[in-house]
Amino acid sequence: MAKTAVYAGTFDPITNGHIDVIERSLKIFDNLVIAVASSKESLFTAEERVDMIKEATKGMNVEVEAFDGLLVNFVKNKNCNVIIKGLRAISDFESEFQMAHMNRKQNKDIDTIFVMTSQKYSFLSSSIVKEVAMLKGNVADFVPKAVENKLKGKFK
Amino acid sequence: MAKTAVYAGTFDPITNGHIDVIERSLKIFDNLVIAVASSKESLFTAEERVDMIKEATKGMNVEVEAFDGLLVNFVKNKNCNVIIKGLRAISDFESEFQMAHMNRKQNKDIDTIFVMTSQKYSFLSSSIVKEVAMLKGNVADFVPKAVENKLKGKFK
Amino acid sequence: MAKTAVYAGTFDPITNGHIDVIERSLKIFDNLVIAVASSKESLFTAEERVDMIKEATKGMNVEVEAFDGLLVNFVKNKNCNVIIKGLRAISDFESEFQMAHMNRKQNKDIDTIFVMTSQKYSFLSSSIVKEVAMLKGNVADFVPKAVENKLKGKFK
Amino acid sequence: MAKTAVYAGTFDPITNGHIDVIERSLKIFDNLVIAVASSKESLFTAEERVDMIKEATKGMNVEVEAFDGLLVNFVKNKNCNVIIKGLRAISDFESEFQMAHMNRKQNKDIDTIFVMTSQKYSFLSSSIVKEVAMLKGNVADFVPKAVENKLKGKFK
Amino acid sequence: MAKTAVYAGTFDPITNGHIDVIERSLKIFDNLVIAVASSKESLFTAEERVDMIKEATKGMNVEVEAFDGLLVNFVKNKNCNVIIKGLRAISDFESEFQMAHMNRKQNKDIDTIFVMTSQKYSFLSSSIVKEVAMLKGNVADFVPKAVENKLKGKFK
Amino acid sequence: MAKTAVYAGTFDPITNGHIDVIERSLKIFDNLVIAVASSKESLFTAEERVDMIKEATKGMNVEVEAFDGLLVNFVKNKNCNVIIKGLRAISDFESEFQMAHMNRKQNKDIDTIFVMTSQKYSFLSSSIVKEVAMLKGNVADFVPKAVENKLKGKFK
Repeated sequence: MAKTAVYAGTFDPITNGHIDVIERSLKIFDNLVIAVASSKESLFTAEERVDMIKEATKGMNVEVEAFDGLLVNFVKNKNCNVIIKGLRAISDFESEFQMAHMNRKQNKDIDTIFVMTSQKYSFLSSSIVKEVAMLKGNVADFVPKAVENKLKGKFK
Repeated sequence: MAKTAVYAGTFDPITNGHIDVIERSLKIFDNLVIAVASSKESLFTAEERVDMIKEATKGMNVEVEAFDGLLVNFVKNKNCNVIIKGLRAISDFESEFQMAHMNRKQNKDIDTIFVMTSQKYSFLSSSIVKEVAMLKGNVADFVPKAVENKLKGKFK
Repeated sequence: MAKTAVYAGTFDPITNGHIDVIERSLKIFDNLVIAVASSKESLFTAEERVDMIKEATKGMNVEVEAFDGLLVNFVKNKNCNVIIKGLRAISDFESEFQMAHMNRKQNKDIDTIFVMTSQKYSFLSSSIVKEVAMLKGNVADFVPKAVENKLKGKFK
Repeated sequence: MAKTAVYAGTFDPITNGHIDVIERSLKIFDNLVIAVASSKESLFTAEERVDMIKEATKGMNVEVEAFDGLLVNFVKNKNCNVIIKGLRAISDFESEFQMAHMNRKQNKDIDTIFVMTSQKYSFLSSSIVKEVAMLKGNVADFVPKAVENKLKGKFK
Repeated sequence: MAKTAVYAGTFDPITNGHIDVIERSLKIFDNLVIAVASSKESLFTAEERVDMIKEATKGMNVEVEAFDGLLVNFVKNKNCNVIIKGLRAISDFESEFQMAHMNRKQNKDIDTIFVMTSQKYSFLSSSIVKEVAMLKGNVADFVPKAVENKLKGKFK
Repeated sequence: MAKTAVYAGTFDPITNGHIDVIERSLKIFDNLVIAVASSKESLFTAEERVDMIKEATKGMNVEVEAFDGLLVNFVKNKNCNVIIKGLRAISDFESEFQMAHMNRKQNKDIDTIFVMTSQKYSFLSSSIVKEVAMLKGNVADFVPKAVENKLKGKFK
C-alpha cells in the first residue's frame, strides 16, 4: 500500500527550502499532500499559493490543496496519519513542538515528523524572502522563477 | 503574618496551566492576588477574564483584580513584594527575564519568582487554546468548563 | 516493498521515551533497525544494551544490532536511507542537527527525520535515569521492568 | 585610510544600550555611520529618531542618516564593508543571523559583526522602554535625557 | 508557622551570585536550608564548601548542610516542600527543568521555584570563577573574600 | 596606524570554518594574531596546532602564537584591544558571552566582537571533525589538506 504524508504550511510563498523538504520527504513517502493553510495576513491568496506550489512541484508525486479548520481533520480525511514539518532553526522548534503536541491531543493517531532543510536553506523563510523582495533585493536564489516573478508583480 | 504573592498575566483566557501554577503557588504562599493585566488585543474583556478566573478559583485563597499601569505599583499597593510568573518553555524565558529585570529597576524591593507548570501543561498557552477553539477543535482538556463554553460562544 | 528505518543511539539504558519513539516510528515504517552505538563511557556494555532493547521490544517489528564506525555506513549496509532520531527539547536540537548535517555530507542519499517523544517523556533521558537510580530513587515509571532490575544490580 | 562601519537599526528610540554599542564600536572603527531604518510601525518618525541620535552622539565620530531599501545598498553607497549589530541575548540571535546571512547573499563583500552590549544593558530594548514609558514608569536610567522627555511627550 | 525552603547546589565554591539568590530568597522565606550536594569532581571538599558558605552567610537565617542521595528525601526530612534554584540564563534552563520535573515525580508534594539572579551576576558561575582563578585572574568581584583566599591557595 | 585583532581558540585542529573567520576578519582588520590556547585535553599538542595554522594561513597577514594564562593579558601584551570569536550557532552563544563578559571584567579596555561563520560551515566544529575522522569518515571538505593528513596519522 502506498504511504502518504501531509506537508502543511502557509507557503506564502513557497521557497526553495520548502521544495527541498518536499524532495527529501518523497524519498521516504510514496506521495505527499501539500496542505496550504488559510491565513488572513498572507501576501498571496490561497489560490495563488496553491498555483505557485503546483507549478514548482510539476512532475513530483504531490497533490496540492488549500484547507480550513483543524489540520488533523484534514489529515484524517486524506486517510493519512503523518504530518511533515520542516525544521530549520531553534526559533522554529518550540512553536512547532507546541503545535505538534496539540495536534496529538486532537487526534492521537496522527503524528508529526520533522524533516531538516538543507543547510544552505537554513536561514531561508517566506518572511525574509518577502522582506527582501519588497526592498527590491534579489531573491532568485531562494524561490522558483515563477514565484520570483509573482513577487516582483506584488511589489512593483 | 500571612504571606501574599501576586500572580500576574493577561489570562485571555485562564487555562488549566494557569490553575496549576495557582495551586502550586498556594502551597508556598498563604494567599494570592491574581492581577489581570489590561490588553488592547485580548479576545475577552478584562471583566470577562476576571469573572472566568473567579469562577475557576472558587474556594481557593485568591483575590482576582484587573489592573492598569505598572505591575510593580499594583504589587506595592497590595503590600506585597513577590510576583509569581509561570514558566513553561524557553520561549517564555527571555521575555519574562527581561520584564523581571525591568520590574526590579522600577522597584528594587519587589522580586519575581518563577513557578514551573506541570509537564502535561508545558505546551499549553492561551494563544494556542484560542487558535484551536477558533478552528472548532476540542479544548475541554485545557481549560475549565466555563471557559470552554465562553470560547464556544465567541467562535460561533 | 517494505520500508525500513534505522533508529540509532547509545540506549544506555533504553527508557520508556525510546520505546515511545519506536512505537511511533512503527506507525510510519514497516520495520526498524535499532542501531546501538558503541561508547567508551557507557554504564552497560553493548551486549547488555542490545539485550535490554530486545527484551523491551519483544513482538515488535524491530531488529536490534550493535555497531561501530560511521552510522551512515551501517545504514547503507542495511539498504536503508532513513535515520530516526528522537527530539525532546531544545538541548537536543543543535547537536542532533549538527550530526544530521554531517551525516548528509558523508552520504547524501541518507536523511535524518526527527520524531517527537510523548510529552510525558519530554524530560526523560538515560542520563537522568542513571543519576536517579544511583541515588536509589524510583525509576519504575521511566524504564521497562527488566531495565529497572538491571539498574538496581549496577548500583547495589 | 580611515575605517568606517555602519551601525543599523530602527532606534525607536535610541537607548543607552545602543549608545554603549556605539562607544564600543568607536574603539574599533575610526567612525560610524548610524543607519536609521524606515519602519511603518515606529512610535517616532524617522526624522525624530535621527534627531534624537544626533543629540545623543554629539561629539562622537558618527554620522546619522535615515535609509530606505536594502541595507547592503546603503552600506555600499557609503563605501563601507562592515555592518555592526548589537547582540544582547539569545532572542536577538537567530533573527540577526538570518538577516546577516541574507545580507551576505545580497552582497558578498559586506560582512556583519556583532558587538555585545554591556551586561547592565542586556535586558534593555526600545520596546520595553516604550512599554514602561507608556505605563508612566521611570526610564531615566535607560535612555538619554532628551529621549526621556520625548517619551513623556508622546505618552502624556 | 515559619516557612522554610531548601536552596540546593554544589557551591564549588559559593559565589556572589549564590549569595544574591540567598538574600532574595530570605525576603520570601523565613529561613533557608542550604543543601550542599556531594560531587566526585568538585575542587573543594564538601566540608570546605560548607565552611565557606557558613562564613559567607554569617548572620543570615540560614542553615548549611551537606547531603547525599536524592534531594527530595533531604527536603522531606527537613519538613520542607520548596526547593529554590537560581536561574541565570538559558543554558541553566533545560537541565534545571528536567531535574525539577524528575524531583516532582519522586515526590509530588515538593515543588521547585526559580529565583533570578541579579543582572550583574548573570554571567557568573562557579566554573568560570575557578577557570579565571586557575589562570591567576582577578575574582575579587565575584566571590566573598574568604573564598578568594581559598582559591588562591588551591591554585598556587 | 595598522589595526590588529586577536583571534583566540584551541584550534584542535583548525577547520575551514576557522579559516573562513580569519579571511572575513582580515577584511576588517589589517592583521590578526591567532592565539592558540593551551588545553590539557587536546588531541594535538600546542606546537602541532600552531604549525597546522601556520601552514593553513600561509600568505595571510597573520601571526600565530600559543599562549597560557588569561587571554586579556595576552591581548594587552600584543597592544591590542579587540578579541575576535567565531559564532556558528546558539550553542556557542551563551558560553562565549559569559567568557566575553568575564574578559571585560578582567580588562575593561579590551572588547570582544563576534564574526559569523559562513553558512556552509555553520555545523562544523573541531570536535565533530575529530569524531568523524576517528570513525574513518571523510573530512576532506572540512579541514585543510595538511590537517586531514595529520588526522589520518592520529587515528591510524
